[in-house]
Amino acid sequence: MSTPIHPVILCGGSGTRLWPLSRKDRPKPFLPLVGEQTLFEQAVGRVGGDDRFAAPIIVAGSQHIDLIEQQLGPASGNRLVVEPTAKNTAPAIALAAALLDPDAIMLVCPSDHHIADEAAFRAAALAAAELAREDWLVAFGIAATRPETGYGYLQRGEPLAGGYRIARFVEKPDRARAEEYLASGEYSWNGGIFAFRAGRLLEEVKTHRPEMARLVVQAVETGREAGPRFLPAAEPFEAIHGDSIDYAVMENTDRAAMVPAAMGWSDIGNWAALQDALASVADGSGNVARGQIDFDGCRGVMALSDGPRVSAVGLEDVCIVVSGDEVLVTTREGAQRVGKLPGASGQ
Amino acid sequence: MSTPIHPVILCGGSGTRLWPLSRKDRPKPFLPLVGEQTLFEQAVGRVGGDDRFAAPIIVAGSQHIDLIEQQLGPASGNRLVVEPTAKNTAPAIALAAALLDPDAIMLVCPSDHHIADEAAFRAAALAAAELAREDWLVAFGIAATRPETGYGYLQRGEPLAGGYRIARFVEKPDRARAEEYLASGEYSWNGGIFAFRAGRLLEEVKTHRPEMARLVVQAVETGREAGPRFLPAAEPFEAIHGDSIDYAVMENTDRAAMVPAAMGWSDIGNWAALQDALASVADGSGNVARGQIDFDGCRGVMALSDGPRVSAVGLEDVCIVVSGDEVLVTTREGAQRVGKLPGASGQ
Repeated sequence: MSTPIHPVILCGGSGTRLWPLSRKDRPKPFLPLVGEQTLFEQAVGRVGGDDRFAAPIIVAGSQHIDLIEQQLGPASGNRLVVEPTAKNTAPAIALAAALLDPDAIMLVCPSDHHIADEAAFRAAALAAAELAREDWLVAFGIAATRPETGYGYLQRGEPLAGGYRIARFVEKPDRARAEEYLASGEYSWNGGIFAFRAGRLLEEVKTHRPEMARLVVQAVETGREAGPRFLPAAEPFEAIHGDSIDYAVMENTDRAAMVPAAMGWSDIGNWAALQDALASVADGSGNVARGQIDFDGCRGVMALSDGPRVSAVGLEDVCIVVSGDEVLVTTREGAQRVGKLPGASGQ
Repeated sequence: MSTPIHPVILCGGSGTRLWPLSRKDRPKPFLPLVGEQTLFEQAVGRVGGDDRFAAPIIVAGSQHIDLIEQQLGPASGNRLVVEPTAKNTAPAIALAAALLDPDAIMLVCPSDHHIADEAAFRAAALAAAELAREDWLVAFGIAATRPETGYGYLQRGEPLAGGYRIARFVEKPDRARAEEYLASGEYSWNGGIFAFRAGRLLEEVKTHRPEMARLVVQAVETGREAGPRFLPAAEPFEAIHGDSIDYAVMENTDRAAMVPAAMGWSDIGNWAALQDALASVADGSGNVARGQIDFDGCRGVMALSDGPRVSAVGLEDVCIVVSGDEVLVTTREGAQRVGKLPGASGQ
């Protein structure tokens, strides 16, 4: 058996479009959006109980460490890397890489999305790890199912063992292009899940973002352990010019690869996406209820309440969310705008 | 100057279609639906400060007497008739008639509707009183503005001084007939507002509902005063077979008349009707807000909240009501079904 894969779980993602459930002090990863577990718990669970995966490294901001330790439970054996400040994904991933053996294979997993088919996820992870051992920088390519304009797209190039070279990255195409990509069958969505050999990833950061690499290494070398927590030094880390792993590395390297992954992925980017992810628990009219909900003549309505009863009459394709002192009622199309509401932005 | 008109204010109307704002312990007449005052306060105010009207007699169930005294304020000079039990409008009106001088002109005013034009109301009241003095039983005929199927209709017959004989009563016609009536121009809505000479009204009840008349008179004769309250005897009153004044008297008498009244009347029969009654305070997109409400891309939406903020996105022709532990979201068409919701009927 080969050495285990080291999951690196990123805890970013504020989920402002999932306001009013997602709030600053309890953002999207820490909410039980699909099923009983939070997205973060599910991310940890997906790589647990399987000796092909080591105990994960969790990278998170200090403001969420308490939530994380609560949700992980006692003595989990996980390592927590506490970011002194949020600097986007490239520094977070580089931090984890610098803490691992250069030959360790790391699997970068965001915790703000849902994956329905965990077996498919693990199969893709193993295929990605194989490519990463050969020093490919491997992205998961999510099978595109609609002309989504909010995601990054990966164009498949020449075949590799278990995957493809990435011919091109396209970030958030317009609608016409997204439709072209979907029709062509050559494009996948970039799901933000990656496999790297830790040493290779650091070398790539050094090549394309040398100052970032230097500061990350310095933050790790002058950081300190505190029980299960590792605290990188704040001063060098805060000096980093933040960037995403896509911009900093993936779009610059000549070793970008992808593994196709059809695994029921959803980034649960807004309330309409959550409704879709909950389709299996919808009633015969496509209505989804959580809490005390009465539907009368509704179709395709999702209603969630943490307390008050919600009575919905005659509605179609509407999402209703009652959370604390906030009530949101939005059409499915309007769901995309929720993050800009006074309530969501004024928290 | 002729003797003053005696307003008789009826306090029925549960308003279950205005749930969750209207509840058993605070039904429709006692809610400030349009403006700062409750419908009941407005009903009293419409006949106040004008010496052509005497202090009103208020007929109400015992469960609402406290609310009424609260809303009337101290030393109002009104007389409160406490119904031992609800028996529909005919016995309530007969009670008031039995307490008045036979020659007194009574003006029966429900307190569960809104009248925008009070001057037009008073003008119609004076015209109705003139006919009542000539022993006509006079209904207010509300100018019909849509083919409403939920109301009673009055067909105008031969002209009288200031009004018309009523040729025919039609209760809740179907849609096709309602459209015919509207097109014909011969029909008005029965607004439930009436003028009678008290003695004549009692004689008519005696003629068409002799047992009801006997029991009402007995309840008054054996009733008692308690400060401003008059308490009819419970035993005879409870023995009454309840009925509406329309069925018991108006449809049977040969002296039914009507005065036309174009006075911005609305029975505020459901949330959509309230939204219409609040059109003057709507924003440029036809949205009406009460409480802390944020609209984003909405048209024709009404949102009322007694606490939580409501954020509404992309909706059209929807009513949102947040009241206590209940949240209602309904289309305008659905508003008619609100009274049948588990929440509304299960109180």
